Formats: sequence, structure tokens, C-alpha cells
Amino acid sequence: MAPDPMTFRRARRPEHKQQRYEAILAAARSQGLLKGVRNVSLADIAAEVGVHKSALLRYFETREEIYLHLTAEGWQDWADAMRGDLAQLSVGSVAGVAALIARTLADRPLLCDLMTHAPLTLERNVSLEAVRSFKLAGLAALADVTVLIRRVLPALTDDDVRDLVWAVTAVAAGLWQVTHPPATLVALYAEDPRLGHTQVEFTPSLQRLVEVVLAGLLKRESGGECIH
Amino acid sequence: MAPDPMTFRRARRPEHKQQRYEAILAAARSQGLLKGVRNVSLADIAAEVGVHKSALLRYFETREEIYLHLTAEGWQDWADAMRGDLAQLSVGSVAGVAALIARTLADRPLLCDLMTHAPLTLERNVSLEAVRSFKLAGLAALADVTVLIRRVLPALTDDDVRDLVWAVTAVAAGLWQVTHPPATLVALYAEDPRLGHTQVEFTPSLQRLVEVVLAGLLKRESGGECIH
Repeated sequence: MAPDPMTFRRARRPEHKQQRYEAILAAARSQGLLKGVRNVSLADIAAEVGVHKSALLRYFETREEIYLHLTAEGWQDWADAMRGDLAQLSVGSVAGVAALIARTLADRPLLCDLMTHAPLTLERNVSLEAVRSFKLAGLAALADVTVLIRRVLPALTDDDVRDLVWAVTAVAAGLWQVTHPPATLVALYAEDPRLGHTQVEFTPSLQRLVEVVLAGLLKRESGGECIH
Repeated sequence: MAPDPMTFRRARRPEHKQQRYEAILAAARSQGLLKGVRNVSLADIAAEVGVHKSALLRYFETREEIYLHLTAEGWQDWADAMRGDLAQLSVGSVAGVAALIARTLADRPLLCDLMTHAPLTLERNVSLEAVRSFKLAGLAALADVTVLIRRVLPALTDDDVRDLVWAVTAVAAGLWQVTHPPATLVALYAEDPRLGHTQVEFTPSLQRLVEVVLAGLLKRESGGECIH
């Protein structure tokens, strides 16, 4: 919830500063979900908070820093969401892990969009310290996810889980972009029978590919004798 | 090779038009490789061709149309490159297919960069007809690759190859972006021992992940009895 801009023009007391900081992040989240991260400017975020752009710059250097912060937060939130449900799965449940990964990513459209933008633009327009805390937060989330997944699938090594997260997030990022096509493409799909069938759905496609990657990783660990 | 801009200011004869068309594509290729696609403007391309921006607009509507054309060309070029070497592989050579896919994509840095930009920006700033010919060219290249790969790995179905190409190109696109980090990130990796080891290399990472996806797809086709 954004603070009422009429209540205080400039946040001076610590609780007001914290409230404004949270309001900026909330506005960046809602604008990103509404328009796609690439289309959100600092002015859009300021307008939703109800302040001038310059007021935002007391909290974040650039729009990229805001979204990089939200990416780090998104990774940790994803790890936290996986924690509870992974704990319910029985050891060896490959299909359960695949379904859970697909569902928790599908539930996080902003994170899926940010996965593309982090290396492409967000890491490029921020300070060294902003990138450092982003990278360390990402490593912490990966370490959490690794422990959680290896408890269910103990045949996987730490390197396997790193490869899994790499492949899965690359596929989720790519799928998110193609499943949010521009109007021109929607019109083309509707009109051209040669292309309509090429449309993909996010969650089933992701789940299928996560299952493939998990099967391949388990195959790698089990030796290779079953593949012709 | 760009035509000498002093030779003709406006291309009027058909062979000059074709020469200028090729010069525009060549300039977009070299600028994209040099600066990364996201940083190349229509003015950069015009400057390399040696003409004013308005001269380019007789051939392409936008910079996005130029790069979408190069993406379609890149897909077909990739399929053509795979053709000869796949024909040399013996049936069942999973490692051979994985190595070939990784090597042929590593040899095509512009295509790997364009894979990110096509759905993100290129498809969004062009006409319906430009998107249609891009999509049809992509389908044709996919059909070529499918026939070629299934000859070596006949256990795979058409759907498997579509999933393979999906996963592999998503991973290649993601890897290309993270293996071309901005200066800030290079400085951070060099300075912070907690992060230096997180750097990845394009070709070995891609090859490892292609092997995993292929093993998972072959597992899917062989039933599932070997995975615990």
C-alpha cells in the first residue's frame, strides 16, 4: 500500500523512510506486473508512489537498482516457497519436484520476467555494491534450494542442482517472454493456421522440461547404462 | 563489405539496391557483434554503411526489422551448419550431437545474442508481415534440424526435438548474456573471492546441459524404469 502522498512530502522520521522504501518497491512490483519490466520507467514508479522522481533517488540510484533488489528478493521468496512443499515430498519423487518447481515459478510472473532483465540490463546500470549484494543474495537462495532439493533427490550432487537451477530458470525466462507476446503476434497467431499451433503454454511446457532435465541429471549420476 | 558511399548516394539500379541491402545487413551484423545488439541504434548502422538514417528506411522499417531478419537468417545458417557434421555422426551418438550443438552455437555469438532479443524487443517493433516471415523461417529451420537430429537419434520424436531446441536455445541465450558481463561485474568477480568461482564458461556449460537434456529426452522415450 502506497503512503498517502498528502501525509508527508518528504519522509524524515525512520518509520516514514521505511514506509516510503516499501512503497517504492510495491509500486515497482505492480508496475512491472502490469506493463512488463522493460516498459516501466522511474517516472512510472514515482507516479504510482505519488512523489516526484527525485524523491525516489534518495532510496535507489536507478530504476535498475530497484528491480535488481526485487530480483534478489524474488529468488529468496522462491526458495522460501519451495521449502514448505518440498518438505512434504517423499524421497525420490522426481515428478513431485518437477511439478513443484514449475508451479512455484508460474506463481511468480514478475520473477520470471526479471530473470531475463537481470543480466541483460539490471546488472549494467547499478553500482558495484548493488551488484555485490544481488549476487550474494542469489548465492544464498541457491544454497537454500540445493539443500532442499537434495533432501528429496539425494542422488543429485550440488553441481547437479546448480545445473538444474541454471537450465530451469533459463527455460522459465524464455518461456515467460514467448508466452507474453505483443499484440502483433497475437493477431498473427489468430490469423495464420501455419503458426497458431506454435503457441506454447507456460506451466505445462516448463513442467515437461523440468522433468526432462531432472531425468537427464539422474541419468548422469546413475552411470549411463540405460541409454542406447 | 559496405559500398563506398561516394560511389552512389541513392541506390537506384537493382544491383545497387541489392548491394545496399546487403551492406545494411553486414553493418548490423558487425555492430551487433561489436557492441551487443541492445546497444546498436539505426544511426550506428547507417554510420557504418556510410549513409543517412533515412536511406536505411527505404529497405527496413526499423532497427528491429533488420535484426529480426538477421535472426531468421541465423536460424537457417545454424541448421545448415549442423547438416554437414550431423551427417558424419553414427546413429546413437548422443555425445556427438551434444558436442555439435554446443560448438555450432558457440560459433554463432550474434545468433545467441539475438535469441534473447527476438521475443523481448525485435518482435514488438515490426509489422505483422515481418513477424510472419520471421516465424515461418524459424519453423522451416526447426523442421530441417528435426530431420537431421532424428537421423542420428531415431529414438527421439518430433516433439522431443522441439523440446530439445527449446531448452537448448533458452540455455544458450541465458549463458550468452551471463558470459558477456558488464565491466562492473568483471571488477566484482576479480575482487570478491565469494563470487569469482561463480563465473561460467559458455561452451563447456552449454555442452554439459545439452547432454543432460538429451539424456532426459531419451529417458522419457525409453520408459522410466532406470530412474529411482
